[in-house]
Amino acid sequence: MSQQGTADLDRLDEIVKTAAFVIHRQGYDATSMNDIADAVKLTKAGLYYYTRGKQDLLFMIIKWAMDLVESEILQPCGEIEDPEERLHAIVRNHLETMLVDGGVVAILTVEVDKLAADHRAEIKARHRIYLDLVRDTLTELKERGRLRPADPMIGALNMFATILGVARWYQPGGHLAQELVIDEITSYVLGALLKDS
Amino acid sequence: MSQQGTADLDRLDEIVKTAAFVIHRQGYDATSMNDIADAVKLTKAGLYYYTRGKQDLLFMIIKWAMDLVESEILQPCGEIEDPEERLHAIVRNHLETMLVDGGVVAILTVEVDKLAADHRAEIKARHRIYLDLVRDTLTELKERGRLRPADPMIGALNMFATILGVARWYQPGGHLAQELVIDEITSYVLGALLKDS
Repeated sequence: MSQQGTADLDRLDEIVKTAAFVIHRQGYDATSMNDIADAVKLTKAGLYYYTRGKQDLLFMIIKWAMDLVESEILQPCGEIEDPEERLHAIVRNHLETMLVDGGVVAILTVEVDKLAADHRAEIKARHRIYLDLVRDTLTELKERGRLRPADPMIGALNMFATILGVARWYQPGGHLAQELVIDEITSYVLGALLKDS
Repeated sequence: MSQQGTADLDRLDEIVKTAAFVIHRQGYDATSMNDIADAVKLTKAGLYYYTRGKQDLLFMIIKWAMDLVESEILQPCGEIEDPEERLHAIVRNHLETMLVDGGVVAILTVEVDKLAADHRAEIKARHRIYLDLVRDTLTELKERGRLRPADPMIGALNMFATILGVARWYQPGGHLAQELVIDEITSYVLGALLKDS
């Protein structure tokens, strides 16, 4: 972008979110810049005013999703002293974040390997901080004799698998209310991770 | 294939399994018939002697994975009378099947939407029979007051998400032994689904 006026930035924000939906629905490999240009009502040349290409756009999308994970989960939950309360808040906030805009945030995990190597490393480092918070929380719970899994890391990986799974099977606007789904998955994950929960 | 001799069928079987690995690693959209021809050491024309194209090959792969799910999980577990024992066997057998050949069986779920409509419907109908077995097992457990989730269907979907997740994060030959991973995930899923387990 040659000039970064506010209108341009708003438009870019809109492009990133719309492209996220298209890629979330079709998959990164099956999405062309033409598909994205059509969805944001720009010519392909017009789209290239905002981005250098599809991989650059994916990086902007994934940064946006990662920002959301940090502001909605990592920061608020990281401040909670008690590990059991912290785990509960992490699971609930992660589910709420996952279900924002029909699960589009899942792109972060599903398509991260499509990024250029340096961008992928940057995102994986940010992701690692979140994984560490979860693993440390589970390790604290293990020390208190509260953890069911023998290995906190496997517990953390299973927890992410369950939460990310919801993006695959949950249909917004379907017959299952979002609040019920969040309650049920929170209870499932805490039941899996905590003794006598 | 013009002649279905035994050698041809053996070769086809080998092509299907090798193509499964390539698609599992690269993703269906990013895999070309050239990639598959290279992997099976055939010319592209040679490969077309065995299959009509990439989508046809994917259908053969997914049928093979579905056969495995039926013979290793659905049939043996469906005969177990006690629902708690049945659930335990389903989870364990599914994990063992998932980890066969580095998780290649996960293609069944990951790429099923890439099939032609009639083939997709055929596979989804077979998949549905398995989903019904799990949901009925969880409903039986609910009637006995043993189920933690309020909704057996959400429980079933979460269970599949956890089990399928292992194909994403588990690295065969990594520092986690396969038997430990299977034990831990079985315990996680049963803890999530059963009261006082």
